Amino acid sequence: MLSERLSKQIEFIKEIDKIKYIQRKTKLFDSDRPENDAEHSWHLAMMTLVLVEHSNESIDLIKVLKMVLIHDIVEIDTGDVFLHDPVKNHINTDEELIAAKRIFGLLPEEQAKEFIDIWLEFEEGKTKESKFAKAIDRFEPILQNSSNNGGTWNEYNIDYEKVENKTKSIQYGSFNLWNYAKELIHSYYKKR
Amino acid sequence: MLSERLSKQIEFIKEIDKIKYIQRKTKLFDSDRPENDAEHSWHLAMMTLVLVEHSNESIDLIKVLKMVLIHDIVEIDTGDVFLHDPVKNHINTDEELIAAKRIFGLLPEEQAKEFIDIWLEFEEGKTKESKFAKAIDRFEPILQNSSNNGGTWNEYNIDYEKVENKTKSIQYGSFNLWNYAKELIHSYYKKR
Repeated sequence: MLSERLSKQIEFIKEIDKIKYIQRKTKLFDSDRPENDAEHSWHLAMMTLVLVEHSNESIDLIKVLKMVLIHDIVEIDTGDVFLHDPVKNHINTDEELIAAKRIFGLLPEEQAKEFIDIWLEFEEGKTKESKFAKAIDRFEPILQNSSNNGGTWNEYNIDYEKVENKTKSIQYGSFNLWNYAKELIHSYYKKR
Repeated sequence: MLSERLSKQIEFIKEIDKIKYIQRKTKLFDSDRPENDAEHSWHLAMMTLVLVEHSNESIDLIKVLKMVLIHDIVEIDTGDVFLHDPVKNHINTDEELIAAKRIFGLLPEEQAKEFIDIWLEFEEGKTKESKFAKAIDRFEPILQNSSNNGGTWNEYNIDYEKVENKTKSIQYGSFNLWNYAKELIHSYYKKR
């Protein structure tokens, strides 16, 4: 007989499949094909593995991996919020908290609590792990836009200051990555 | 100035974007849309986080996560090999080793070596971590096919014994998950 516990876990595993349908604004590298949230989350996990040495502080790798793997699961219910959206703000809305409780709530109680806590820690961005996870989350679209002749910066006509303002928090997680990112942003706006 | 080391890491991060174009035979849950390797790898990482307690042995979670996140990167060069392909065999071919050396070889030397070693350990399937990672890799398509009226089992007309033979190694990683998987396979072939 299948335990109730395993059944709950499988229910969650099926539900999160829906993240593969959530399209982001940013496109794949050298491409005009939009990235979806599952692809994005996989790429952030790989970037975390490869770039962890650039964190300003020594961090718990497994916690950062959990953060980047789960950070967009709430978007199954709320949809993707574009970083440069002039109306919607991506600061931990009530709507997102309801989504987190519904989706992670499919899991056995203590697992649900663990995931909700990790997601909240990521959203708040106060711990060293969440600062690095957020740095990686901001860094990926900069790499993508740079490879796509400005990508969403160009498409939505976003000026230099706005991009810098929305991405400079990368430095709280990694000065190295922020220096690299700044160069890419400068270099695009210089030739624009 | 950007260090040579970071530049190599970024080169790798861009290259692995191509995994998002590698289509698998299996489809998303309750869907006829094929899954790609990035989505698949993300889902395996999530399954690892949620199901690790079902491993037969106590395992190094971070190593399993690395395995499932990178296990299909070689397919950027070699393409996806279908589990039930009657000709091609997915046992660590020379072609795959060349791909691993080329793609992971973009990274700084000791990182390249670490990823190649982890990929080889996964492919060989002899350690407790690789047994669990392989169990998860076999388990996901069973969940998907069950949700899709047999999915690839039906589409490629694969009989019960073949499916059982190709998936029973799940038990080496997790008796719990194999019991669950067996029920799903039985239940599909009983009503077929």
